[in-house]
Amino acid sequence: MSNPSSPASSLQVIAIGNAIVDVMAPCADALIERLGLVRGGMTLVDTDRAQELYDAMGPAREISGGSAANTLAGLAALGSSCAFIGQVAQDQMGEVFAHDIRAGGISFETPARAGDPPTARCLIFVTPDGQRTMNTYLGASQFLPPAALDEAAIAAAQVLYLEGYLWDPEEPRSAMRRAIAAARNAGRKVAFTLSDAFVIARHGDDFRSLIEAGEIDILFANHIELAALTGQDDFHAGIDALKSKVPMLVVTRSEHGAVAACGGELFEVRAEPVEQVIDTTGAGDLFAAGFLHGHVQGRPPAECLEIGAICAAEIISHYGARPEANLKDLIDARFG
Amino acid sequence: MSNPSSPASSLQVIAIGNAIVDVMAPCADALIERLGLVRGGMTLVDTDRAQELYDAMGPAREISGGSAANTLAGLAALGSSCAFIGQVAQDQMGEVFAHDIRAGGISFETPARAGDPPTARCLIFVTPDGQRTMNTYLGASQFLPPAALDEAAIAAAQVLYLEGYLWDPEEPRSAMRRAIAAARNAGRKVAFTLSDAFVIARHGDDFRSLIEAGEIDILFANHIELAALTGQDDFHAGIDALKSKVPMLVVTRSEHGAVAACGGELFEVRAEPVEQVIDTTGAGDLFAAGFLHGHVQGRPPAECLEIGAICAAEIISHYGARPEANLKDLIDARFG
Repeated sequence: MSNPSSPASSLQVIAIGNAIVDVMAPCADALIERLGLVRGGMTLVDTDRAQELYDAMGPAREISGGSAANTLAGLAALGSSCAFIGQVAQDQMGEVFAHDIRAGGISFETPARAGDPPTARCLIFVTPDGQRTMNTYLGASQFLPPAALDEAAIAAAQVLYLEGYLWDPEEPRSAMRRAIAAARNAGRKVAFTLSDAFVIARHGDDFRSLIEAGEIDILFANHIELAALTGQDDFHAGIDALKSKVPMLVVTRSEHGAVAACGGELFEVRAEPVEQVIDTTGAGDLFAAGFLHGHVQGRPPAECLEIGAICAAEIISHYGARPEANLKDLIDARFG
Repeated sequence: MSNPSSPASSLQVIAIGNAIVDVMAPCADALIERLGLVRGGMTLVDTDRAQELYDAMGPAREISGGSAANTLAGLAALGSSCAFIGQVAQDQMGEVFAHDIRAGGISFETPARAGDPPTARCLIFVTPDGQRTMNTYLGASQFLPPAALDEAAIAAAQVLYLEGYLWDPEEPRSAMRRAIAAARNAGRKVAFTLSDAFVIARHGDDFRSLIEAGEIDILFANHIELAALTGQDDFHAGIDALKSKVPMLVVTRSEHGAVAACGGELFEVRAEPVEQVIDTTGAGDLFAAGFLHGHVQGRPPAECLEIGAICAAEIISHYGARPEANLKDLIDARFG
């Protein structure tokens, strides 16, 4: 890079994602049924449904979230330099989101949006098994305009990381397509997380086109999303269907660990042992954080997987999808 | 009571307190010094200082708080019927506070206040030893008008519980004086928590006058507040100075447990063992919850103390001053 003192030129990961504050509460299994929620999934909700669900929810806590933003929080905690692009409104929740991401050491310059709708929130019901059921009110987040992109920063960052969830609303989808072009024109890598099987149900054709066109360098999925995208119920058949189409395919399998397929090889890691699973919110996000951190450091895939597993284990042992323990210390303790 | 089907007539505890959302973040000891904070104490801050402290704070989480509101959350979780009086603004944090207190099963009817200032927030820095250093921006909370009192509910509730913190601003102070009169006229008990040594420094004369006039039936303090109020550094000298002036004196001593003085007798309880102290925010509030719950059930002081100790132990083993475990189960397990 010609100018190492420019902040943009030292960026390792720049991400585009939903700017969301999570509203989380423990909940009995019966409430999930009574409210007709899709257990373990993410459902988009409108204002009325969000109010109905909030009214039914127990005492909650608010912790900044958003899938890609969580991943950046993990990356920054590990020592990677990061920037986030996402849309908040000019309201208290928007201030909370902006505070938390900046306080994590992440550059965040997208201007807050005036007027309605308010900042996005995700109502998360956490059942006694630690499973999270998410209901997202997209609010301001769905109005991220392509004009909000800092294309110079995208061109300068090692990796552009995109959140599949944000493929739903039209404006951010256009913004992400433009960001992919900017990154690829600059010879940068594009990483994409499929986010959710229901997102794939809505946008699978788009995702498959991007992959076929060679636009995705690193693809993150869990085993359910892999099946949804490939139509293969068998895990290894799913891997086989995709592995030649993306240079790096990373698939998590909950308590069964994760695999990475690249260069014709398959790498595996077991899940890290966890004393008690409190809340699985952010497990995939933090796995991606650990993996990407290893990747931008030039570590081999097996190590990237292991760092991902350590980060995922930390996040599921407490409420909220932002790290609480010192992730860097955890990784240094393992790798010296 | 003449009309047991009226909601007000079945109230056990009605409380007046600050309606606050806690903004909590872990923090290194060095930051406390750098920001010039009063470690372990509560400091009132204005808008500018609140912004300065928030900017310096790490990624945070928001959990509804307020001392008396925390106590009610504990009482309601234990099965007592409760109502809260406190002032929020018409903003997102006000909605969060109102949601959380109502979701806890507490009646809360004080109308939200339009316009500036926003809902109160308390910036809480939690050091690695679990100690909390609180900085309160009172916002809308300081404008609780005497007109907001539901005097019929106060007259009907077994106990009126008042938060010393709220003695600082003028309007709520007037409201609390009026509430004391309403409760006493109806033959109800008045419970008061001294809240903080610095509050006593500002309002000790008021508090001593209330006590001398026999307006307080149950007085809650910690050992530092006891010393501040009585001028006695020695714990037992402090107890001796006060015990004849309030029918029930309850003093907590952090890891040394708590004592209650009533009817010429002194009762003691040890602190409950805790695996790890994570965050002491709300320890006193939840001790008061447990004690009052026992009290309104007509339990003997020794049992009230024990219930208080169990509730305090639960709250310091996680972030935030609202209970996470099922307090009722914890108490039932002990007392059957």
